[in-house]
Amino acid sequence: MAITVQDVIDYLERPVKRIDNTVDGLNAGQPLMEVSGIAVTFVASQHAIEEAVARGANLLITHEGEYFSHRGGQEQWPDDSVVAEKRRLIEQSGIAIYRFHDYWHAYKPDGITEGLKDALGWGTYERDELSYASVIEFPEAKSLQEIAHDAKERLDLPHVRVVGDPAKMCRLIGLSAGYRGGGANSIPLFGRYNLDLIVTGEGPEWETPEYVRDAIHQGAGRALLLLGHAESEEPGMKRLAKLLKCEFDGVPVSFVKQTPLFNIL
Amino acid sequence: MAITVQDVIDYLERPVKRIDNTVDGLNAGQPLMEVSGIAVTFVASQHAIEEAVARGANLLITHEGEYFSHRGGQEQWPDDSVVAEKRRLIEQSGIAIYRFHDYWHAYKPDGITEGLKDALGWGTYERDELSYASVIEFPEAKSLQEIAHDAKERLDLPHVRVVGDPAKMCRLIGLSAGYRGGGANSIPLFGRYNLDLIVTGEGPEWETPEYVRDAIHQGAGRALLLLGHAESEEPGMKRLAKLLKCEFDGVPVSFVKQTPLFNIL
Repeated sequence: MAITVQDVIDYLERPVKRIDNTVDGLNAGQPLMEVSGIAVTFVASQHAIEEAVARGANLLITHEGEYFSHRGGQEQWPDDSVVAEKRRLIEQSGIAIYRFHDYWHAYKPDGITEGLKDALGWGTYERDELSYASVIEFPEAKSLQEIAHDAKERLDLPHVRVVGDPAKMCRLIGLSAGYRGGGANSIPLFGRYNLDLIVTGEGPEWETPEYVRDAIHQGAGRALLLLGHAESEEPGMKRLAKLLKCEFDGVPVSFVKQTPLFNIL
Repeated sequence: MAITVQDVIDYLERPVKRIDNTVDGLNAGQPLMEVSGIAVTFVASQHAIEEAVARGANLLITHEGEYFSHRGGQEQWPDDSVVAEKRRLIEQSGIAIYRFHDYWHAYKPDGITEGLKDALGWGTYERDELSYASVIEFPEAKSLQEIAHDAKERLDLPHVRVVGDPAKMCRLIGLSAGYRGGGANSIPLFGRYNLDLIVTGEGPEWETPEYVRDAIHQGAGRALLLLGHAESEEPGMKRLAKLLKCEFDGVPVSFVKQTPLFNIL
């Protein structure tokens, strides 16, 4: 039986109560189009769209949108040649692009955090599950250096950024993804659980990183590990690709990995 | 003649038209206190406050505040032990803390951008001065790698983050500081001047970095160099310390440098 774009959207949004004012939705393409293949990715980059098309997918499911902004589309950048070229690719390919951000985060447990936790191999150490983070308790403390090394290996990352002494031993860890590394989430989380370490995606540098710097200077010994926004949310989208593969078993489903965004010089 | 905290504030705010709803102001201490010494820094970290006190300064002038947030003070983190310890230090030392953020950015030229431009040695190459950025035109193109290397040496940085090919040759550069690396500033700036490179502090990773990644994938060949928020704004505060030294020549004025915030693992 033919599967339409709308069938896939209905399947994805069904487990969650309707969200108002969401960024999620069908940004390109037609809901009644028959799906020949699904590609899943973190961000609808030029590369991800081209790769989806090359693989024969006509539905791209993405966590972040096409036009470099949490809200709003190409109308934000009316005269930009890069944006125009991308719009051309999307229109000419006829690909449907569905953004799956708020709904995936609203799953219980959060689809993105869950994917990250599993990719790190920390599932069995979860002590508490919050709406925006997971609290991990290792049976024995590990050094920040060792945790960073493991995370790089498991997530296939060339580097991570840390605030704190690489030799610092950590047992209680807050884990969050994406932009949840900001102070509003992370500072109360440190206090509530007296965490040794928060592992997250990104956040403004003068918020949590400066808090951790002060904590260290006071001798309170906290640490922060920033995986990167994309790097922290990709495993959650990879997990989604697996789910879709099980649900729509007549439709080819594949995951488009992004290359690391930053080089360190 | 005795100089008061208010005298220094008046001197600093005089060149700029009154700003409403500013984050600037006297966050600790009394305006009529006589100033025995001035310390200037990027952020009122625990270290910077202790160092100011140790040097005999009783006025700390800072670009970012004490409590890990662009707006708001310690009331945001009511039960946090790190915040409580910091508040204790501030109260017991009696130091005055004046935040000089919006006014310094509102100078013509912007005191922070100007300090960064001079520290990089790019003053003579300025082609255009905008309120939020400077446009630099090198007489001859340099590689991104070379520009990164020079910036690290001149600003004393252990590393910088880049998006783009280190071999990419760059002649037209947008320079901005702090959090101005976000898409709203940087994407139109790229287009308006057809820039090869933007050098800035930080910004959300899914905005300008993803835009540059797409531009590169399309063959448009743009690049981004992130110095770090603190690292990009510190030179502007160092420049301020020099100005104050000239103006208040009976008062000891010194600059408190921050150590690099992040390690790369």
